[in-house]
Amino acid sequence: MALNPNFNAIGSAFVQSYYQMFDNNATRGELAKLYNAEQSFLSFEGQQMQGTTKIMEKINSLGFQSIGHNVTSVDCHPMFDGGILVNVMGQLKTDQDIPQSFMQNFVLKPSGDSFFIQHDVFRLVIHNVAAH
Amino acid sequence: MALNPNFNAIGSAFVQSYYQMFDNNATRGELAKLYNAEQSFLSFEGQQMQGTTKIMEKINSLGFQSIGHNVTSVDCHPMFDGGILVNVMGQLKTDQDIPQSFMQNFVLKPSGDSFFIQHDVFRLVIHNVAAH
Repeated sequence: MALNPNFNAIGSAFVQSYYQMFDNNATRGELAKLYNAEQSFLSFEGQQMQGTTKIMEKINSLGFQSIGHNVTSVDCHPMFDGGILVNVMGQLKTDQDIPQSFMQNFVLKPSGDSFFIQHDVFRLVIHNVAAH
Repeated sequence: MALNPNFNAIGSAFVQSYYQMFDNNATRGELAKLYNAEQSFLSFEGQQMQGTTKIMEKINSLGFQSIGHNVTSVDCHPMFDGGILVNVMGQLKTDQDIPQSFMQNFVLKPSGDSFFIQHDVFRLVIHNVAAH
């Protein structure tokens, strides 16, 4: 499959849509539609899981009342299987806490007319806590 | 191609080797061997280039006398084409500057008995400078 020439537009639209859904308590559950039931991998702060059910269990277990993602940069690459590599760096704020830097990396895989998230890696940028 | 069961060991060894070569002025040029002459993509602080020649021009143009990468976390995923997704978060120190947080994402692609870097995305974690 060829490189997708619209990789920047698709990746940027995905990022905007993903965090919009994530940051609204009423729509966060719809993120399930973006993952693949069997294939998708998530690493969340070093904890790895596979498949929509386990990924959504993790997302729903996060103990905040409100969350807001503020995206600083989005870097997209076209991949040689038609996928799109998306790297996000930004800040997030939960409840009354101070903003935290985060990084999140997605691999979007083509499926029919759309894409699903095949890989999702999330890390807070914290050096004295995160384990190697 | 199947998922590589050794993805963690391969990804971690790659990261150690990559920054060892990068941080030594005498071996930095050997990084060229890790990229593919035509295919490899690099995004460096939002600037995108392709192919070993342009990637090494960029790396060699960075204006420091000494650099040290201190890796905080490495997250690896096996990819469905036999590749390995590697996400690094850490701190780097150039010359006498204060340490800076960075994130770097690699897609390693199998080639014969080894791997090459098909995608490389680098960002300093700076929120008031980086453009969206």
